Amino acid sequence: MKIIIVGATGTMGKHLTSAFEKEHEVLRVADKGGDMQVDITSTESIETLFKKAGPFDALISTAGPTHVGPWKNLTDKEFRKGVEGKMMGQINLVLIGQHYINPKGSFTLITGALTHEPQKNFANASTANGAVEGFVRAAAIELEKGIRINAVSPTVIENSPQYFPFFPGDIPVTMQQLEYGFRKSVFGANTGQVIKPY
Amino acid sequence: MKIIIVGATGTMGKHLTSAFEKEHEVLRVADKGGDMQVDITSTESIETLFKKAGPFDALISTAGPTHVGPWKNLTDKEFRKGVEGKMMGQINLVLIGQHYINPKGSFTLITGALTHEPQKNFANASTANGAVEGFVRAAAIELEKGIRINAVSPTVIENSPQYFPFFPGDIPVTMQQLEYGFRKSVFGANTGQVIKPY
Repeated sequence: MKIIIVGATGTMGKHLTSAFEKEHEVLRVADKGGDMQVDITSTESIETLFKKAGPFDALISTAGPTHVGPWKNLTDKEFRKGVEGKMMGQINLVLIGQHYINPKGSFTLITGALTHEPQKNFANASTANGAVEGFVRAAAIELEKGIRINAVSPTVIENSPQYFPFFPGDIPVTMQQLEYGFRKSVFGANTGQVIKPY
Repeated sequence: MKIIIVGATGTMGKHLTSAFEKEHEVLRVADKGGDMQVDITSTESIETLFKKAGPFDALISTAGPTHVGPWKNLTDKEFRKGVEGKMMGQINLVLIGQHYINPKGSFTLITGALTHEPQKNFANASTANGAVEGFVRAAAIELEKGIRINAVSPTVIENSPQYFPFFPGDIPVTMQQLEYGFRKSVFGANTGQVIKPY
């Protein structure tokens, strides 16, 4: 299976690359580094990526830039980071990528527990997550040729302890659990699901 | 109570105006007509609205422009209608309006069952709804001075029969049920809730 991982140089992306490259062809994509680069806030950049990458069987996205910061400083301007990044960036990977993916392929996007369990400073992420999850359910009934789409929604992940103070009471998801979530989406048969790997 | 209704000239807005103006001061706001006008896709226009409207106790939004149409024609461009309209339009009403609303005031936004029950042609609305619902839960733990926020999430509404063919199997929500949903948010004590008036 040929798997494109967008966000391959990040904490999640590195783990997933390492886990899947043993048995599959993995194309590591990131804003910098990796095998190919993409700016997910640009539809032109996404289009170019898929043209260069060629047909593929699965796209995994762990790319989720959002604005983190105090509510009192939150305006439309700061909010756009998550709108263009984690939300429209991932949505455009699907809207464009559907024309390049092989039949019976799959898209797996990243959201997070913040959709339903908000924490202070993360309103932008809660919003982007909710958008992506709504999109995933809607896209699942539209995509043809057996193409599937799911989201993986972890809590804070164990390899990002710098975030622990912002997530009081959230039991960290292990990298192994996170990997299982993506395995369920990529190698399973479900579609339109928000997979909670915990 | 002074209530601002954004989207006051639409099907829902007219009903809510008629229901609430008997006992409350209602300011009818719309893109055209009404007592005051606003373009919710412009933060400047929203800021001007609140400056003119003065302090208020409740804001109700029934303003939800989204793109409706076949998936195969859906690109970033069409998608922006819901992103700027139902999503960021409503979110900016809150981010800006919080500086004008009275203590213990409330914001009530509109979403819809499409968040969790997609229908073909409505991926843009499912996405915008999911975003607004994620935002509502996050904003509820950030807003201070007893200010509350909820969303009302109906299915297709009985007074919009032109949409019935697009919502097979969805039992229409009556205008009375819809009104009850908004009553629960505006006059109740809940916050961070997605109220399903059915």
